[in-house]
Amino acid sequence: MSQSNTSQSRGLARADTLDHIADVVVVGCGAAGASTAIAAAEAGASVIVLEAASAGGGTTAMAGGLIYMGCGTPIQTACGFSDTPEAMYEYLIRASGPNADPERVRLYVDGSLGHYDWLVAQGMEFKPEYYPTKNTNTPGDECLIYTGNEACTGFSEYAAPVPRGHKGRAMGEGGGSMLMEKLIASATAKGVRILCDTRARSTIVDDSGAVIGIAARSEGREILIGARRAVVLCAGGFIMNTEMVSRHAPWLQNHTTLNGNPNDDGSGIRIGLGAGGAAMNMNEGFVCLPFYPPASFVEAIMVDSRGQRFINEDCYHGRMGEAILKRYPERHFMVVDAGHLSDFNRPPLGGFRVTATGDTAEELEAELGMQPDTLAHTIRVYNRHALEGGDPLFRKHADYVRPLEGPYAACEVTPGSGAFFPVFTLGGLRARATGEVLDEEGNAIPGLFSAGRNSCGLPRSGAGYSSGMSIGDATFFGRLAGRSAAESPVRTMTTAR
Amino acid sequence: MSQSNTSQSRGLARADTLDHIADVVVVGCGAAGASTAIAAAEAGASVIVLEAASAGGGTTAMAGGLIYMGCGTPIQTACGFSDTPEAMYEYLIRASGPNADPERVRLYVDGSLGHYDWLVAQGMEFKPEYYPTKNTNTPGDECLIYTGNEACTGFSEYAAPVPRGHKGRAMGEGGGSMLMEKLIASATAKGVRILCDTRARSTIVDDSGAVIGIAARSEGREILIGARRAVVLCAGGFIMNTEMVSRHAPWLQNHTTLNGNPNDDGSGIRIGLGAGGAAMNMNEGFVCLPFYPPASFVEAIMVDSRGQRFINEDCYHGRMGEAILKRYPERHFMVVDAGHLSDFNRPPLGGFRVTATGDTAEELEAELGMQPDTLAHTIRVYNRHALEGGDPLFRKHADYVRPLEGPYAACEVTPGSGAFFPVFTLGGLRARATGEVLDEEGNAIPGLFSAGRNSCGLPRSGAGYSSGMSIGDATFFGRLAGRSAAESPVRTMTTAR
Repeated sequence: MSQSNTSQSRGLARADTLDHIADVVVVGCGAAGASTAIAAAEAGASVIVLEAASAGGGTTAMAGGLIYMGCGTPIQTACGFSDTPEAMYEYLIRASGPNADPERVRLYVDGSLGHYDWLVAQGMEFKPEYYPTKNTNTPGDECLIYTGNEACTGFSEYAAPVPRGHKGRAMGEGGGSMLMEKLIASATAKGVRILCDTRARSTIVDDSGAVIGIAARSEGREILIGARRAVVLCAGGFIMNTEMVSRHAPWLQNHTTLNGNPNDDGSGIRIGLGAGGAAMNMNEGFVCLPFYPPASFVEAIMVDSRGQRFINEDCYHGRMGEAILKRYPERHFMVVDAGHLSDFNRPPLGGFRVTATGDTAEELEAELGMQPDTLAHTIRVYNRHALEGGDPLFRKHADYVRPLEGPYAACEVTPGSGAFFPVFTLGGLRARATGEVLDEEGNAIPGLFSAGRNSCGLPRSGAGYSSGMSIGDATFFGRLAGRSAAESPVRTMTTAR
Repeated sequence: MSQSNTSQSRGLARADTLDHIADVVVVGCGAAGASTAIAAAEAGASVIVLEAASAGGGTTAMAGGLIYMGCGTPIQTACGFSDTPEAMYEYLIRASGPNADPERVRLYVDGSLGHYDWLVAQGMEFKPEYYPTKNTNTPGDECLIYTGNEACTGFSEYAAPVPRGHKGRAMGEGGGSMLMEKLIASATAKGVRILCDTRARSTIVDDSGAVIGIAARSEGREILIGARRAVVLCAGGFIMNTEMVSRHAPWLQNHTTLNGNPNDDGSGIRIGLGAGGAAMNMNEGFVCLPFYPPASFVEAIMVDSRGQRFINEDCYHGRMGEAILKRYPERHFMVVDAGHLSDFNRPPLGGFRVTATGDTAEELEAELGMQPDTLAHTIRVYNRHALEGGDPLFRKHADYVRPLEGPYAACEVTPGSGAFFPVFTLGGLRARATGEVLDEEGNAIPGLFSAGRNSCGLPRSGAGYSSGMSIGDATFFGRLAGRSAAESPVRTMTTAR
């Protein structure tokens, strides 16, 4: 039995006895790890979860708690929406971006109703109420909300729009912590042992390269945990690891706010690479610019320093944030009109403020230092089209298109100008939908699985991301990985080389 | 001694004797491999090069052969240009993009004059003649040409522009094959053995994880080649591996032309990953749209389907190609005017043709199906600024700015419309500038080195790429890797486990 560090198999175990042993050892107790543990326990496995922090929860416990589900959930139905597997698939395959995994999307869609039921079985409650206003989450305990680009150009042509963001019955941003409480309680009730303050350091591999356990540091000492059947890496992404981000996704570092918990340091990804797994999609990240709420700001236009529009402003705030951050350091502005001025009574969520004003478009343009007849022309064309009832240039939804009348104001939304750009990573271990970690050739590493942001999962594109795809992915594919791990063959535990 | 496949160390060698042995074993005989072999031989090492094809040359032998050099080469001086390390560094650090490696750029710049001398010592001749017209290469046997964005906005503000593309004395696109002839002849003269028709399959690693050789398939049989000191992977990029490109850089697959030789299949990258190395920058690629020659087309404007400009059209054709491909499937057009019509007597290199015409901008706009007063407004503003002598919106160089007068024509340059978008990959193994392959933690894999597109080298950004950076990188850092490999400690060759 040899112990690998996070990068490569080498060296011998310092101890020749195991401190703990279970059928399935899960690294990380966020949404993916807890769901994996529950599913493995449901399949009859003994399960140990290793959590680096002093309590489970992970980044999901810090999140708003939206879960992307559809195909006609009881909540969708109760709120009067009809959804189909076809519509959900067509939407998600585009939302997943150019790197979409059709098999993963298909499984996720076909399992969505079952996943809703599973969440309810874990103790989740969902209030059958739809929140109709464009927002980043439901402000009260309403369940259902649009959380992506479903009704927007580039998506609505292919799939009838329907809201699929589901939040458990908690107020505002409390959905994630409630979800984690339920999942951890369910896991514990099923006999899962959670070892907190225990940081996984490497896999333990046998002479054939199969993973048979984890070496960890627990409360100040090195311990070895044997995994009779499998190890499942669910330790999150790498947004907190500055070195990894600068190497793999440097564009995420331009005046952004890191969205994660301190243990989203890529350690689970590195442990998997050390065991022979491959990484993929490491350059991608989620970025958002929460320019709404208030929803009225969707009626504004976004322009660059040439006064040119570049996007349909009714898009999801993640698509907007990605577009602007990808064009960094180009300057960008949100242009609002007289109808919006009262919206500034309360500071907008996005962290930006008015940087220029003008009674006319020409005055605003001049105050912004733009060339004459650039922004003014953009507003003129936009207004002409708005009077005709649409936006043929960028096909912003007609609900948000109206002529913009002076006086005008512009808010700078360039990264670094004060605007708020939260980011996290969307790359990780290459894995099958059922969790098996693969090497660059596509071969599975025996005994090694992964789910959640530790792997490259369902959400693969900042431009297409919808809120709820990460927690949806972590819980759904965590379940699949837990089941696969529990069914993985028992391996011989040699305790000395 | 265990034999690894390309993905992971496992299994035993089938044979317990070596077919060949050398101090340094180089995989691949393109520009990087040949330069590595020469440098290792110069340092006193015995060297074997394994080449999958029936002859050395690699992709460099198919290339125009430009080499990016500066700091006042004899050719720059003879042609009346003065260059400095500061200017070259400031340019290259920006050309390398957000993922630039300052140490690598510094070494490359400081070693540039020495590299010129080294190339001459290998038999290269450079004709001291400057080709002043914007082009993708020198059409005759002239040596010196601008091959990037040196004189363009975003670069010229930081470093005085100077041409640094150097082609050996060969006509037109013959520079690459000539370079490879010289390098292979030099290597052979120094005692380097080149085994052609020999495809490396995996590293051979000892029990400590150090690389001690290569398992290969040579003329129909499996052979083992021992490396007393080091293996250097110089087997090229992965643009020919559809599966790898779709997983790591799917954006490169939208109606592009694969620019490489059939063995740019990522095998060297996969061999390095299998030995525990990490990959990086796998999402990046070089893309170009050779919209010039003729240089007069630089006076044209490029617009999207909204009639909006998006770039300074005097930029390097690689920067243009990247910008358009990244916005796929958005449609793009090159708008030319009466002054350009004779340029269509010969089909432009870029493969596009006139798709709409108009006596006036309004007619052209309508024929292109654009909204009224979009393209026409763009041309009006461009012309107004041109009459004032500049392009304040995108800061295209004044040399190429003049009012565009009807009749107009537009050529579609959308990928898939017939326009020519050659692409290759810019990601590979993570390595030190001196060649040591690193794992995800930054630890070197003992005995394993890499150079050229097998590794992530100097060029890391399609938007910043300059012609000559790849061959410059491959030859320069190949030399460093060859020296490092020759100085690597001798390892014990156990021939059975």
